[in-house]
Amino acid sequence: MKLYFNPASPYVRKVRVTAHELGLTGRIELISISLTPVTPHEALRSNNPIGKIPTLITDDGATFYDSPVICEYLDSLAGGNRIFPATGTARWTALRRQALADGIMDAAVLMRYEEAARPKELRWQAWIDGQLLKVRTALDALEGENLGGAFDIGTISIACALGYLDLRFASEAWRSTRPRLAAWAAAIGKRPSLEATTPAVS
Amino acid sequence: MKLYFNPASPYVRKVRVTAHELGLTGRIELISISLTPVTPHEALRSNNPIGKIPTLITDDGATFYDSPVICEYLDSLAGGNRIFPATGTARWTALRRQALADGIMDAAVLMRYEEAARPKELRWQAWIDGQLLKVRTALDALEGENLGGAFDIGTISIACALGYLDLRFASEAWRSTRPRLAAWAAAIGKRPSLEATTPAVS
Repeated sequence: MKLYFNPASPYVRKVRVTAHELGLTGRIELISISLTPVTPHEALRSNNPIGKIPTLITDDGATFYDSPVICEYLDSLAGGNRIFPATGTARWTALRRQALADGIMDAAVLMRYEEAARPKELRWQAWIDGQLLKVRTALDALEGENLGGAFDIGTISIACALGYLDLRFASEAWRSTRPRLAAWAAAIGKRPSLEATTPAVS
Repeated sequence: MKLYFNPASPYVRKVRVTAHELGLTGRIELISISLTPVTPHEALRSNNPIGKIPTLITDDGATFYDSPVICEYLDSLAGGNRIFPATGTARWTALRRQALADGIMDAAVLMRYEEAARPKELRWQAWIDGQLLKVRTALDALEGENLGGAFDIGTISIACALGYLDLRFASEAWRSTRPRLAAWAAAIGKRPSLEATTPAVS
Protein backbone atom coordinates (compact mmCIF):
# COMPACT_ATOMS: atom_id res chain seq x y z
CA MET A 1 0.00 0.00 0.00
CA LYS A 2 1.08 3.60 -0.58
CA LEU A 3 0.27 6.49 1.72
CA TYR A 4 0.52 10.11 0.63
CA PHE A 5 2.18 11.61 3.64
CA ASN A 6 3.71 14.63 5.33
CA PRO A 7 5.29 14.31 8.78
CA ALA A 8 3.67 17.54 10.02
CA SER A 9 0.08 16.49 9.22
CA PRO A 10 -1.86 15.39 12.32
CA TYR A 11 -4.37 13.57 10.10
CA VAL A 12 -1.55 11.53 8.53
CA ARG A 13 -0.14 10.84 11.96
CA LYS A 14 -3.46 9.25 13.00
CA VAL A 15 -3.04 6.78 10.15
CA ARG A 16 0.61 6.06 10.95
CA VAL A 17 -0.09 5.55 14.66
CA THR A 18 -2.99 3.26 13.76
CA ALA A 19 -0.79 1.25 11.38
CA HIS A 20 1.90 0.97 14.05
CA GLU A 21 -0.56 -0.17 16.73
CA LEU A 22 -1.94 -2.79 14.34
CA GLY A 23 1.46 -4.06 13.17
CA LEU A 24 0.90 -2.86 9.60
CA THR A 25 3.71 -0.30 9.26
CA GLY A 26 5.82 -2.61 7.13
CA ARG A 27 3.06 -2.89 4.52
CA ILE A 28 2.81 0.86 3.91
CA GLU A 29 5.16 2.80 1.64
CA LEU A 30 5.20 6.50 2.48
CA ILE A 31 5.10 9.02 -0.36
CA SER A 32 6.23 12.34 1.09
CA ILE A 33 4.56 15.42 -0.39
CA SER A 34 4.00 19.04 0.58
CA LEU A 35 0.83 20.94 -0.25
CA THR A 36 -1.62 23.60 0.88
CA PRO A 37 -5.04 24.57 -0.49
CA VAL A 38 -3.31 27.21 -2.64
CA THR A 39 -0.46 24.93 -3.78
CA PRO A 40 -2.16 21.64 -4.72
CA HIS A 41 -0.31 18.43 -5.59
CA GLU A 42 -1.35 17.06 -8.99
CA ALA A 43 -0.53 13.37 -8.49
CA LEU A 44 -2.42 13.37 -5.20
CA ARG A 45 -5.37 15.17 -6.75
CA SER A 46 -5.70 12.47 -9.43
CA ASN A 47 -6.20 9.93 -6.62
CA ASN A 48 -8.16 12.07 -4.15
CA PRO A 49 -10.21 14.81 -5.81
CA ILE A 50 -10.32 16.77 -2.55
CA GLY A 51 -6.53 16.91 -2.69
CA LYS A 52 -5.81 16.24 0.97
CA ILE A 53 -3.53 13.95 2.91
CA PRO A 54 -3.69 11.25 4.10
CA THR A 55 -4.70 9.31 0.99
CA LEU A 56 -4.08 5.55 0.84
CA ILE A 57 -3.73 3.52 -2.37
CA THR A 58 -4.02 -0.23 -1.95
CA ASP A 59 -1.97 -2.75 -3.93
CA ASP A 60 -4.93 -3.38 -6.22
CA GLY A 61 -5.44 0.33 -6.87
CA ALA A 62 -8.35 1.14 -4.55
CA THR A 63 -8.21 4.58 -2.97
CA PHE A 64 -9.13 5.43 0.63
CA TYR A 65 -9.60 8.81 2.30
CA ASP A 66 -10.05 10.66 4.66
CA SER A 67 -8.23 9.70 7.91
CA PRO A 68 -11.26 8.12 9.67
CA VAL A 69 -11.92 5.91 6.63
CA ILE A 70 -8.28 4.89 6.21
CA CYS A 71 -7.95 4.06 9.91
CA GLU A 72 -11.10 1.93 9.83
CA TYR A 73 -9.82 0.17 6.71
CA LEU A 74 -6.49 -0.62 8.36
CA ASP A 75 -8.39 -1.87 11.39
CA SER A 76 -10.34 -4.24 9.15
CA LEU A 77 -7.08 -5.55 7.62
CA ALA A 78 -5.94 -6.41 11.15
CA GLY A 79 -9.08 -8.38 11.89
CA GLY A 80 -11.48 -5.56 12.76
CA ASN A 81 -12.66 -3.78 15.89
CA ARG A 82 -9.23 -3.45 17.40
CA ILE A 83 -9.08 0.36 17.41
CA PHE A 84 -12.71 0.95 16.39
CA PRO A 85 -14.90 -0.55 19.14
CA ALA A 86 -17.61 -2.66 17.51
CA THR A 87 -20.75 -1.41 19.22
CA GLY A 88 -22.32 0.42 22.11
CA THR A 89 -21.05 3.19 24.34
CA ALA A 90 -17.39 2.36 23.66
CA ARG A 91 -17.93 2.91 19.94
CA TRP A 92 -19.87 6.18 20.31
CA THR A 93 -17.32 7.54 22.77
CA ALA A 94 -14.44 6.69 20.45
CA LEU A 95 -16.17 8.20 17.41
CA ARG A 96 -17.19 11.36 19.29
CA ARG A 97 -13.64 11.79 20.54
CA GLN A 98 -12.28 11.29 17.04
CA ALA A 99 -14.65 14.03 15.81
CA LEU A 100 -13.60 16.30 18.68
CA ALA A 101 -9.89 15.76 18.00
CA ASP A 102 -10.34 16.13 14.23
CA GLY A 103 -12.19 19.38 15.03
CA ILE A 104 -9.17 20.60 17.01
CA MET A 105 -6.96 19.73 14.03
CA ASP A 106 -9.30 21.45 11.57
CA ALA A 107 -9.35 24.66 13.64
CA ALA A 108 -5.59 24.61 14.25
CA VAL A 109 -4.78 23.93 10.59
CA LEU A 110 -7.03 26.84 9.55
CA MET A 111 -5.14 29.05 12.04
CA ARG A 112 -1.87 27.83 10.57
CA TYR A 113 -2.98 28.67 7.00
CA GLU A 114 -4.11 32.10 8.18
CA GLU A 115 -0.83 32.85 9.93
CA ALA A 116 1.70 31.12 7.67
CA ALA A 117 0.24 30.89 4.16
CA ARG A 118 -2.08 33.89 3.70
CA PRO A 119 -0.42 37.20 2.81
CA LYS A 120 0.02 39.26 5.95
CA GLU A 121 -2.19 42.12 4.82
CA LEU A 122 -5.13 39.73 4.26
CA ARG A 123 -5.18 38.12 7.71
CA TRP A 124 -8.32 38.41 9.84
CA GLN A 125 -7.79 38.35 13.59
CA ALA A 126 -11.46 37.52 14.31
CA TRP A 127 -11.06 34.32 12.25
CA ILE A 128 -7.99 33.28 14.23
CA ASP A 129 -9.77 34.12 17.48
CA GLY A 130 -12.82 32.05 16.47
CA GLN A 131 -10.73 29.00 15.60
CA LEU A 132 -8.66 29.36 18.77
CA LEU A 133 -11.86 29.44 20.83
CA LYS A 134 -12.79 26.04 19.35
CA VAL A 135 -9.37 24.63 20.24
CA ARG A 136 -9.42 25.97 23.80
CA THR A 137 -13.01 24.88 24.45
CA ALA A 138 -12.20 21.39 23.18
CA LEU A 139 -9.08 21.16 25.36
CA ASP A 140 -11.10 22.25 28.40
CA ALA A 141 -13.65 19.54 27.63
CA LEU A 142 -10.90 16.92 27.32
CA GLU A 143 -9.48 18.00 30.69
CA GLY A 144 -12.80 16.82 32.16
CA GLU A 145 -12.82 13.44 30.43
CA ASN A 146 -11.40 10.19 31.75
CA LEU A 147 -9.13 9.18 28.86
CA GLY A 148 -7.82 6.03 30.54
CA GLY A 149 -8.60 2.63 29.12
CA ALA A 150 -8.19 1.45 25.56
CA PHE A 151 -5.95 3.29 23.09
CA ASP A 152 -8.58 3.42 20.37
CA ILE A 153 -9.33 5.73 17.44
CA GLY A 154 -10.66 8.34 19.88
CA THR A 155 -7.57 8.55 22.05
CA ILE A 156 -5.24 8.10 19.05
CA SER A 157 -6.87 11.16 17.48
CA ILE A 158 -6.59 13.18 20.70
CA ALA A 159 -2.88 12.35 21.02
CA CYS A 160 -2.26 13.46 17.42
CA ALA A 161 -4.24 16.70 17.88
CA LEU A 162 -2.20 17.57 20.98
CA GLY A 163 1.01 16.76 19.12
CA TYR A 164 0.04 19.18 16.36
CA LEU A 165 -0.56 21.96 18.89
CA ASP A 166 2.90 21.28 20.32
CA LEU A 167 4.39 21.44 16.81
CA ARG A 168 2.71 24.60 15.54
CA PHE A 169 1.30 26.44 18.56
CA ALA A 170 3.77 25.76 21.35
CA SER A 171 3.25 29.31 22.64
CA GLU A 172 -0.36 28.40 23.43
CA ALA A 173 1.07 26.36 26.36
CA TRP A 174 -2.11 24.29 26.62
CA ARG A 175 -0.73 22.23 29.52
CA SER A 176 -0.62 25.15 31.94
CA THR A 177 -4.34 25.04 32.81
CA ARG A 178 -5.02 21.36 32.01
CA PRO A 179 -2.89 19.18 34.30
CA ARG A 180 -4.90 15.96 33.88
CA LEU A 181 -4.76 16.15 30.09
CA ALA A 182 -1.05 16.98 30.27
CA ALA A 183 -0.40 13.94 32.48
CA TRP A 184 -2.35 11.70 30.12
CA ALA A 185 -0.43 13.05 27.11
CA ALA A 186 2.91 12.48 28.83
CA ALA A 187 2.04 8.89 29.70
CA ILE A 188 0.51 7.95 26.35
CA GLY A 189 3.35 9.67 24.49
CA LYS A 190 5.68 6.88 25.55
CA ARG A 191 3.90 4.41 23.30
CA PRO A 192 6.22 3.39 20.43
CA SER A 193 3.56 4.32 17.86
CA LEU A 194 3.56 7.93 19.06
CA GLU A 195 7.30 8.14 19.65
CA ALA A 196 7.98 6.85 16.12
CA THR A 197 5.75 9.52 14.55
CA THR A 198 6.52 12.65 16.58
CA PRO A 199 6.84 15.52 14.10
CA ALA A 200 9.91 17.74 14.18
CA VAL A 201 9.61 21.49 13.78
CA SER A 202 10.61 22.59 10.27
CA MET B 1 -33.72 13.93 20.80
CA LYS B 2 -32.75 17.49 19.99
CA LEU B 3 -30.79 18.54 16.93
CA TYR B 4 -29.01 21.87 16.66
CA PHE B 5 -29.93 22.86 13.16
CA ASN B 6 -29.83 25.43 10.39
CA PRO B 7 -31.67 24.81 7.10
CA ALA B 8 -28.74 26.05 5.00
CA SER B 9 -26.17 23.63 6.47
CA PRO B 10 -25.41 20.69 4.17
CA TYR B 11 -24.01 18.73 7.12
CA VAL B 12 -27.30 19.15 9.00
CA ARG B 13 -29.20 18.15 5.89
CA LYS B 14 -27.33 14.83 5.81
CA VAL B 15 -28.69 14.11 9.29
CA ARG B 16 -32.24 15.18 8.42
CA VAL B 17 -32.27 13.13 5.21
CA THR B 18 -30.92 10.13 7.13
CA ALA B 19 -33.58 10.55 9.82
CA HIS B 20 -36.28 10.81 7.15
CA GLU B 21 -35.07 7.71 5.31
CA LEU B 22 -35.02 5.77 8.59
CA GLY B 23 -38.44 6.95 9.77
CA LEU B 24 -36.98 8.84 12.76
CA THR B 25 -38.00 12.40 11.89
CA GLY B 26 -40.78 12.45 14.47
CA ARG B 27 -38.32 11.71 17.28
CA ILE B 28 -36.09 14.71 16.56
CA GLU B 29 -36.84 18.22 17.79
CA LEU B 30 -35.04 20.85 15.70
CA ILE B 31 -33.35 23.74 17.50
CA SER B 32 -32.73 26.42 14.89
CA ILE B 33 -29.55 28.47 15.36
CA SER B 34 -27.29 30.68 13.26
CA LEU B 35 -23.54 30.77 13.69
CA THR B 36 -20.18 31.19 11.97
CA PRO B 37 -16.64 30.64 13.26
CA VAL B 38 -16.52 34.35 14.17
CA THR B 39 -20.00 34.44 15.73
CA PRO B 40 -20.18 31.31 17.93
CA HIS B 41 -23.34 30.07 19.65
CA GLU B 42 -22.82 29.64 23.40
CA ALA B 43 -25.50 27.03 24.13
CA LEU B 44 -24.23 24.90 21.25
CA ARG B 45 -20.62 25.29 22.38
CA SER B 46 -21.47 23.96 25.84
CA ASN B 47 -22.65 20.74 24.17
CA ASN B 48 -20.13 20.52 21.33
CA PRO B 49 -16.78 22.17 22.11
CA ILE B 50 -16.00 22.52 18.40
CA GLY B 51 -19.13 24.65 18.10
CA LYS B 52 -20.47 23.23 14.86
CA ILE B 53 -23.80 21.96 13.61
CA PRO B 54 -25.20 19.36 13.45
CA THR B 55 -25.02 18.40 17.13
CA LEU B 56 -27.48 15.84 18.50
CA ILE B 57 -28.52 15.55 22.16
CA THR B 58 -30.27 12.33 23.10
CA ASP B 59 -33.13 12.12 25.62
CA ASP B 60 -30.70 10.87 28.28
CA GLY B 61 -28.27 13.72 27.63
CA ALA B 62 -25.63 12.03 25.50
CA THR B 63 -24.11 14.23 22.81
CA PHE B 64 -23.25 13.19 19.26
CA TYR B 65 -21.25 15.00 16.57
CA ASP B 66 -20.18 15.39 13.76
CA SER B 67 -22.53 14.46 10.90
CA PRO B 68 -20.97 11.03 10.11
CA VAL B 69 -21.25 10.02 13.76
CA ILE B 70 -24.83 11.27 14.15
CA CYS B 71 -25.91 9.52 10.95
CA GLU B 72 -24.34 6.24 12.09
CA TYR B 73 -26.02 6.61 15.48
CA LEU B 74 -29.43 7.16 13.87
CA ASP B 75 -28.77 4.14 11.67
CA SER B 76 -28.13 2.05 14.79
CA LEU B 77 -31.42 3.26 16.33
CA ALA B 78 -33.19 1.98 13.22
CA GLY B 79 -31.62 -1.46 13.52
CA GLY B 80 -28.22 -0.81 11.98
CA ASN B 81 -26.60 -1.13 8.55
CA ARG B 82 -29.51 0.40 6.69
CA ILE B 83 -27.66 3.45 5.36
CA PHE B 84 -24.16 2.36 6.47
CA PRO B 85 -23.37 -0.90 4.65
CA ALA B 86 -21.98 -3.39 7.17
CA THR B 87 -18.86 -4.67 5.46
CA GLY B 88 -16.85 -5.04 2.28
CA THR B 89 -16.74 -2.99 -0.88
CA ALA B 90 -20.18 -1.49 -0.33
CA ARG B 91 -19.06 -0.05 3.02
CA TRP B 92 -15.75 1.35 1.72
CA THR B 93 -17.45 2.88 -1.30
CA ALA B 94 -20.10 4.53 0.87
CA LEU B 95 -17.53 5.87 3.36
CA ARG B 96 -15.21 7.15 0.62
CA ARG B 97 -18.14 8.89 -1.06
CA GLN B 98 -19.19 10.44 2.24
CA ALA B 99 -15.63 11.77 2.68
CA LEU B 100 -15.63 13.08 -0.89
CA ALA B 101 -18.99 14.82 -0.45
CA ASP B 102 -18.03 16.19 2.98
CA GLY B 103 -14.86 17.48 1.30
CA ILE B 104 -16.98 19.33 -1.27
CA MET B 105 -19.01 20.82 1.58
CA ASP B 106 -15.86 21.81 3.52
CA ALA B 107 -14.38 23.56 0.50
CA ALA B 108 -17.65 25.27 -0.44
CA VAL B 109 -18.31 26.43 3.12
CA LEU B 110 -14.79 27.89 3.31
CA MET B 111 -15.49 29.73 0.03
CA ARG B 112 -18.75 30.99 1.50
CA TYR B 113 -17.01 32.31 4.64
CA GLU B 114 -14.39 33.99 2.48
CA GLU B 115 -16.96 35.67 0.23
CA ALA B 116 -19.77 36.43 2.70
CA ALA B 117 -18.29 36.69 6.20
CA ARG B 118 -14.71 38.00 5.83
CA PRO B 119 -14.32 41.76 5.34
CA LYS B 120 -13.95 42.50 1.64
CA GLU B 121 -10.45 43.99 1.94
CA LEU B 122 -9.16 40.78 3.59
CA ARG B 123 -10.30 38.30 0.94
CA TRP B 124 -7.71 36.15 -0.83
CA GLN B 125 -8.57 35.08 -4.37
CA ALA B 126 -5.97 32.28 -4.39
CA TRP B 127 -7.76 30.69 -1.39
CA ILE B 128 -11.10 30.79 -3.19
CA ASP B 129 -9.48 29.39 -6.34
CA GLY B 130 -7.87 26.55 -4.37
CA GLN B 131 -11.14 25.55 -2.71
CA LEU B 132 -13.04 25.82 -6.00
CA LEU B 133 -10.49 23.50 -7.63
CA LYS B 134 -11.32 20.88 -4.98
CA VAL B 135 -15.05 21.25 -5.67
CA ARG B 136 -14.67 21.03 -9.44
CA THR B 137 -12.26 18.09 -9.31
CA ALA B 138 -14.63 16.23 -7.00
CA LEU B 139 -17.62 16.91 -9.26
CA ASP B 140 -15.65 15.66 -12.28
CA ALA B 141 -14.82 12.48 -10.36
CA LEU B 142 -18.47 11.98 -9.44
CA GLU B 143 -19.47 12.38 -13.11
CA GLY B 144 -17.41 9.23 -13.74
CA GLU B 145 -18.97 7.18 -10.94
CA ASN B 146 -22.01 4.93 -11.19
CA LEU B 147 -24.16 6.33 -8.38
CA GLY B 148 -27.09 3.97 -8.97
CA GLY B 149 -28.05 1.39 -6.40
CA ALA B 150 -28.65 1.94 -2.72
CA PHE B 151 -29.34 5.37 -1.27
CA ASP B 152 -26.77 5.08 1.48
CA ILE B 153 -24.63 7.48 3.47
CA GLY B 154 -22.40 7.99 0.44
CA THR B 155 -25.12 9.02 -1.96
CA ILE B 156 -27.03 10.92 0.76
CA SER B 157 -23.88 12.99 1.33
CA ILE B 158 -23.40 13.60 -2.40
CA ALA B 159 -27.01 14.77 -2.80
CA CYS B 160 -26.59 17.20 0.11
CA ALA B 161 -23.28 18.55 -1.23
CA LEU B 162 -24.86 19.21 -4.64
CA GLY B 163 -27.83 20.90 -2.93
CA TYR B 164 -25.47 23.24 -1.11
CA LEU B 165 -23.77 24.21 -4.37
CA ASP B 166 -27.19 25.00 -5.81
CA LEU B 167 -28.01 27.12 -2.75
CA ARG B 168 -24.81 29.14 -2.49
CA PHE B 169 -22.97 28.80 -5.80
CA ALA B 170 -25.70 28.58 -8.43
CA SER B 171 -23.54 30.63 -10.80
CA GLU B 172 -21.04 27.78 -10.86
CA ALA B 173 -23.60 25.91 -13.03
CA TRP B 174 -22.02 22.55 -12.24
CA ARG B 175 -24.56 20.65 -14.35
CA SER B 176 -23.37 22.14 -17.65
CA THR B 177 -20.38 19.83 -18.04
CA ARG B 178 -21.63 16.88 -15.94
CA PRO B 179 -24.80 15.48 -17.54
CA ARG B 180 -24.73 12.07 -15.82
CA LEU B 181 -24.36 13.61 -12.38
CA ALA B 182 -27.10 16.12 -13.20
CA ALA B 183 -29.47 13.32 -14.29
CA TRP B 184 -28.74 11.37 -11.10
CA ALA B 185 -29.34 14.46 -8.95
CA ALA B 186 -32.65 15.18 -10.72
CA ALA B 187 -33.88 11.62 -10.18
CA ILE B 188 -32.72 11.26 -6.60
CA GLY B 189 -34.04 14.72 -5.75
CA LYS B 190 -37.59 13.37 -6.00
CA ARG B 191 -37.13 11.31 -2.85
CA PRO B 192 -39.33 12.72 -0.08
CA SER B 193 -36.33 12.95 2.27
CA LEU B 194 -34.57 15.35 -0.10
CA GLU B 195 -37.70 17.25 -1.11
CA ALA B 196 -38.59 17.84 2.57
CA THR B 197 -35.15 19.29 3.34
CA THR B 198 -34.38 21.44 0.29
CA PRO B 199 -32.92 24.70 1.58
CA ALA B 200 -34.37 28.01 0.44
CA VAL B 201 -32.13 30.92 -0.47
CA SER B 202 -32.04 33.48 2.34
